[in-house]
Amino acid sequence: MDQDYTSYKEYKERKGRDIDSGLTCECGVYGIVTNGDHNSLEIAQMILFGLEALQHRGQESTGMVTSNGTVFHTHKGMGLARNVFNADSMKKLTGNMGIGHTRYSTSAASEQINCQPFVVHSMHGLLSVAHNGELVNAASLRKMVLERGVGLSTRSDSELITQALCLNPPEGEVNGPDWPARIKHLMQLAPLSYSLVIMLKDKIYAVRDPYGNRPLCLGKYPAIEETDDMSSGWVVASESCAFLSFIRYIREVMPGEIIEITEKGIKTVEIVPRPEGHKQAFCIFEYVYFARPNTVFEGQEVYTVRSQCGRQLALEHPLEADIVGSVPESGNAAAYGYSLQSGIPFGELLSKNTYVGRTFIQPNNSLRRLNVALKFSKFFKRIQI
Amino acid sequence: MDQDYTSYKEYKERKGRDIDSGLTCECGVYGIVTNGDHNSLEIAQMILFGLEALQHRGQESTGMVTSNGTVFHTHKGMGLARNVFNADSMKKLTGNMGIGHTRYSTSAASEQINCQPFVVHSMHGLLSVAHNGELVNAASLRKMVLERGVGLSTRSDSELITQALCLNPPEGEVNGPDWPARIKHLMQLAPLSYSLVIMLKDKIYAVRDPYGNRPLCLGKYPAIEETDDMSSGWVVASESCAFLSFIRYIREVMPGEIIEITEKGIKTVEIVPRPEGHKQAFCIFEYVYFARPNTVFEGQEVYTVRSQCGRQLALEHPLEADIVGSVPESGNAAAYGYSLQSGIPFGELLSKNTYVGRTFIQPNNSLRRLNVALKFSKFFKRIQI
Amino acid sequence: MDQDYTSYKEYKERKGRDIDSGLTCECGVYGIVTNGDHNSLEIAQMILFGLEALQHRGQESTGMVTSNGTVFHTHKGMGLARNVFNADSMKKLTGNMGIGHTRYSTSAASEQINCQPFVVHSMHGLLSVAHNGELVNAASLRKMVLERGVGLSTRSDSELITQALCLNPPEGEVNGPDWPARIKHLMQLAPLSYSLVIMLKDKIYAVRDPYGNRPLCLGKYPAIEETDDMSSGWVVASESCAFLSFIRYIREVMPGEIIEITEKGIKTVEIVPRPEGHKQAFCIFEYVYFARPNTVFEGQEVYTVRSQCGRQLALEHPLEADIVGSVPESGNAAAYGYSLQSGIPFGELLSKNTYVGRTFIQPNNSLRRLNVALKFSKFFKRIQI
Amino acid sequence: MDQDYTSYKEYKERKGRDIDSGLTCECGVYGIVTNGDHNSLEIAQMILFGLEALQHRGQESTGMVTSNGTVFHTHKGMGLARNVFNADSMKKLTGNMGIGHTRYSTSAASEQINCQPFVVHSMHGLLSVAHNGELVNAASLRKMVLERGVGLSTRSDSELITQALCLNPPEGEVNGPDWPARIKHLMQLAPLSYSLVIMLKDKIYAVRDPYGNRPLCLGKYPAIEETDDMSSGWVVASESCAFLSFIRYIREVMPGEIIEITEKGIKTVEIVPRPEGHKQAFCIFEYVYFARPNTVFEGQEVYTVRSQCGRQLALEHPLEADIVGSVPESGNAAAYGYSLQSGIPFGELLSKNTYVGRTFIQPNNSLRRLNVALKFSKFFKRIQI
Repeated sequence: MDQDYTSYKEYKERKGRDIDSGLTCECGVYGIVTNGDHNSLEIAQMILFGLEALQHRGQESTGMVTSNGTVFHTHKGMGLARNVFNADSMKKLTGNMGIGHTRYSTSAASEQINCQPFVVHSMHGLLSVAHNGELVNAASLRKMVLERGVGLSTRSDSELITQALCLNPPEGEVNGPDWPARIKHLMQLAPLSYSLVIMLKDKIYAVRDPYGNRPLCLGKYPAIEETDDMSSGWVVASESCAFLSFIRYIREVMPGEIIEITEKGIKTVEIVPRPEGHKQAFCIFEYVYFARPNTVFEGQEVYTVRSQCGRQLALEHPLEADIVGSVPESGNAAAYGYSLQSGIPFGELLSKNTYVGRTFIQPNNSLRRLNVALKFSKFFKRIQI
Repeated sequence: MDQDYTSYKEYKERKGRDIDSGLTCECGVYGIVTNGDHNSLEIAQMILFGLEALQHRGQESTGMVTSNGTVFHTHKGMGLARNVFNADSMKKLTGNMGIGHTRYSTSAASEQINCQPFVVHSMHGLLSVAHNGELVNAASLRKMVLERGVGLSTRSDSELITQALCLNPPEGEVNGPDWPARIKHLMQLAPLSYSLVIMLKDKIYAVRDPYGNRPLCLGKYPAIEETDDMSSGWVVASESCAFLSFIRYIREVMPGEIIEITEKGIKTVEIVPRPEGHKQAFCIFEYVYFARPNTVFEGQEVYTVRSQCGRQLALEHPLEADIVGSVPESGNAAAYGYSLQSGIPFGELLSKNTYVGRTFIQPNNSLRRLNVALKFSKFFKRIQI
Repeated sequence: MDQDYTSYKEYKERKGRDIDSGLTCECGVYGIVTNGDHNSLEIAQMILFGLEALQHRGQESTGMVTSNGTVFHTHKGMGLARNVFNADSMKKLTGNMGIGHTRYSTSAASEQINCQPFVVHSMHGLLSVAHNGELVNAASLRKMVLERGVGLSTRSDSELITQALCLNPPEGEVNGPDWPARIKHLMQLAPLSYSLVIMLKDKIYAVRDPYGNRPLCLGKYPAIEETDDMSSGWVVASESCAFLSFIRYIREVMPGEIIEITEKGIKTVEIVPRPEGHKQAFCIFEYVYFARPNTVFEGQEVYTVRSQCGRQLALEHPLEADIVGSVPESGNAAAYGYSLQSGIPFGELLSKNTYVGRTFIQPNNSLRRLNVALKFSKFFKRIQI
Repeated sequence: MDQDYTSYKEYKERKGRDIDSGLTCECGVYGIVTNGDHNSLEIAQMILFGLEALQHRGQESTGMVTSNGTVFHTHKGMGLARNVFNADSMKKLTGNMGIGHTRYSTSAASEQINCQPFVVHSMHGLLSVAHNGELVNAASLRKMVLERGVGLSTRSDSELITQALCLNPPEGEVNGPDWPARIKHLMQLAPLSYSLVIMLKDKIYAVRDPYGNRPLCLGKYPAIEETDDMSSGWVVASESCAFLSFIRYIREVMPGEIIEITEKGIKTVEIVPRPEGHKQAFCIFEYVYFARPNTVFEGQEVYTVRSQCGRQLALEHPLEADIVGSVPESGNAAAYGYSLQSGIPFGELLSKNTYVGRTFIQPNNSLRRLNVALKFSKFFKRIQI
């Protein structure tokens, strides 16, 4: 376990850069509450399916926290869910509810300390938070939390959010174990961007920032109602693809909405508004790059949106050509769309090899030539189709 | 390091089953000889690129042996090349020649002892063998080797081949360090199926079985001749996709051919014939399933062959339909071909999630339903395209 | 990384038991400040020597934090220093000062999250704490910290101390970056037991509780003053045995003393008194069991104290016997003392095998008999000496 | 898994050096056959106790092979038994008989391939060998084995012995599955030095070289005969300390003796004589250094022998002195003996710290001084005793 700790000044500077770069904080979050057996492994299995289905949103680390109403069990680690979880770690993750997280690979450093979900003991019981997004005013929120006398272990927004939820808001506003009020208070302090899944010992709050910048959707488990021994419950996830086919897609969490999920069901406890005059602002990169093609946003399947973009491109920029190709995989749907609209046949022109790439030899002429070669090696000449 | 050892009777029975099942022994082999620096890491880097490009042929284990003309350096391990090799293991793998292997996952057992390439000290120097294929008469060859007084550490054909090459053939046939004669002798004893890459301290033999059942092709490094500091040499690999763009595809190794590769170049030392009346028998599953679409076999790109099969299907079985889909990824090219021939638009109907699948909960009604769900969850309804 | 989180109620109950059991929290702490190169690995090497020499005080986990005046580098892990640190982890641990910790194995759970030293970002810069001891009023201190709105990640006293140091004391008492005042405030809230090594980016505070319950001593580096290229500095450690021979033992840190160590030297900034009427209370188990025989406490070598106890026992309880033996290793010195005083020859009667002991078979008659056997197996009959 | 393979010439040169150095091949061997349950874990537990009790003879690697009469289960790995074996690996090691090995750390290289016991499939069934010793004519034996056409995977004597046992001796001497004859044939080819434990699927052969150079002793399990549910059987081990208290020491295996151990009991099948005129030659370093003090060789406890040497030294070289000390731990018994004979009191003068020692900083003046310091740091001044 390695960790480097640097100064606040350096943090602010890095933070600025990260915001400019724009794409730094892609993650997947998942939460589930069922009325099932509080000592069952079933909950961990459900979360694991969800995390694996969200793995494309982050491969740096994967983690899970389950609750049986009393105790939180956690397991987190660097890497893919398939490597982090095994039979031994799974059998401890009992309960009837839980949350999970897949984290995007940012810098190179091994930062196990940043694995989510975060868990703390608060004055009002155990609290765990999984977060997708990046706080635009993280620096000022961090300053506020530090000034209140909290020591922060990491630079992550997620720990910051967790500690900010623990802090007692100023007198007159809210106090005590009124978690919805604490969440609302935080959302007013920091209006974007995040989708949060917040677990207390007996409930989960699903929260989407007032701008709706990050995705979060709601599902019902099981997909088909039946009268048998199966438990039932509610699920939230960054993308509907995480529902697989055993969870029924219900709707998106609304911008600013705080949904409380318990064994008894779901309840919208608050819809925190945006600052006046501000518009909803869903991240366009979800459509373009992040999301799986079979995910649904705003009533539209991502594949269809991408395909329609391709059709539109063919209408706006018609070309004479023999073949339409794509850079796999994100570009596939758009290329199909262009092909369908234009009548030019689609053909696979690039063969993507996800394994090749690591170089261990020192930079020299040979290596430089190899490196160029590696990029182009993924192409091959199509003689006939 | 775990290993279970069972009886010969059990071995024969298993062997019979394996042969029936037909697809048990898919692997990738790679070999390279250059005139470069004998203490360079470059050779290991080249092999690693090759193994990563052949990883689709086997993910159970990966291994590499390099030679500088005197010493063999080896590194092998369970899992993908990306996990088996790191900066530490790479820096020991110096030399100007080497061979590598990726092994297909068969049963569940952790069998590190079976990682290839095999290396032994023989009376005539060091010997290393990488093998793709399965000996149809393994049981009788094994009996012969054991009767000669050799103890075998594993059940693998690859160790069997290695020890069989060490054994002195009966008087009058061949003896001493005449490796081509030893290889030919073995090929007559065991005519199929294999592609072999056999390394001695200063040369490599590339061998394809007389039936041409398993693929093996030859390339020249670098792809473009230049007059500079770069080394040059020859490469053999299971598939041409392993050449990436810095190795020029030359031709396939012919059925029964033994090619000797040294620093000075290549030489066909023997072409061992098939039994009279027997035909060449290339494994059809290479086209259908195993190979990468951008690999070339018998002068044809695999993608093109698959696509032509789709066109042919459309001619033989025309259908009225709205859309042509495929089970990704092997089926993609055939679906494109059907679409092109029939004029029916192609559309992606299945979203393959390579992560989802492991179940840790005990079989019960819930799990059974989940399992069915998992399979179908990969489908989604296309509303419009 | 696994962790279970339980309720506050359960914590208080466990805490009560731990205090009763008395011996739960044995650890080793180490700190060093030199005027040497701020980018040197030398500091990490010094700390590693110290941690290995203190390893007998705790084998559960080992950790180190170094500072170059700006950045803190940390490396921590479960197990012995020899397993936690290697060339890769060491080369990152640069600086001219640092602290380290070896943690005693308590329960069975893998609790990487509890590895010390702890590091947090505070309003007044980076802060790292290594702690040996156990707070007798941990439960009330914890309640205070939680009520101030801090979320705590662990149940450990060490995190509690770290967060308590960050909190701003009530108005009128102390505020801002006056760390000695913060430390003093904490010592008044929690008067025992601890030895603390607290690092800020450019200084270390060495702190011993007002009762002097836990040991901490001060040394000067190098042991012999010389005029050459070597750096010089000050060291604190749980036991003088950690000074090896290249650090000169100076004195013990006094009960209640706060020593500030910088590049410029050492300064006693405060001596916090005990509550009136309370006596100094050094833990007797340090003499009897914990400490190495060559450590010096209160001006006396531990070996000598143990030996004198044996002499005294011989005076108070003289016996006629053939031989004096000991239960190795803590009992050796006392047995020698008894032998010297009584004239009865010493002989080794027990052969301690540190390896034997783990049982994997299920409890049954055989195992029960084996277990008894194992204990007695360490004895052997001495026929003649 | 790393391995370097070098030439035969280099092997012979190294081999020569090893023999000169004399102490290169210290290991521990263990074997047990019981009439107990063939699917029980009990056998693995017994072997593990034995290997842990023999761990002082070798810490490089540890391994175990068990047999249930049909299948051999193996588990081997680098390092101590405590690290190599865990609940998962143990539960597979079922059977009613088995052998084990602890290997001495020679060079630095990670050589997992050399872990013992070795296992091979032979023409006459499974064969496993554990070996303590070093063949003085290894080079010529190796040449013979290679010339017969066997490929050897390692440089180890143990693989050489295993393959030599598989080879059919020349016509007229012996053939077929007569293992005692094969063992005797090998003992005549290679008369020293070794203690061997050789397992076939239903029996173990315990073999000591004709010179009696390496120790091997025989025990009966359980130590005390009782009429209950417990299994009973026979054990062989390098030292009697491995019997702990649940196995009764019977006698040493005689020089040249081949003992066959089956479920039914033991039988001396052969005593292979030394070359005429040659004397028995037990390794003196067993008494001086290798063996545990509570082991019995030739009817004498090692502790007593060492102590008597100290007494004899006091008689031959009386000195006036204040104190007798020792370099722990091998020297302790001799120092006690000197003290008892001379009347000069014994005192512990050196404090051995087994943890300290590794240096990661580059050689420079500081380090050189540190290194000297480290050696002397283990001493401390005794003021009074």
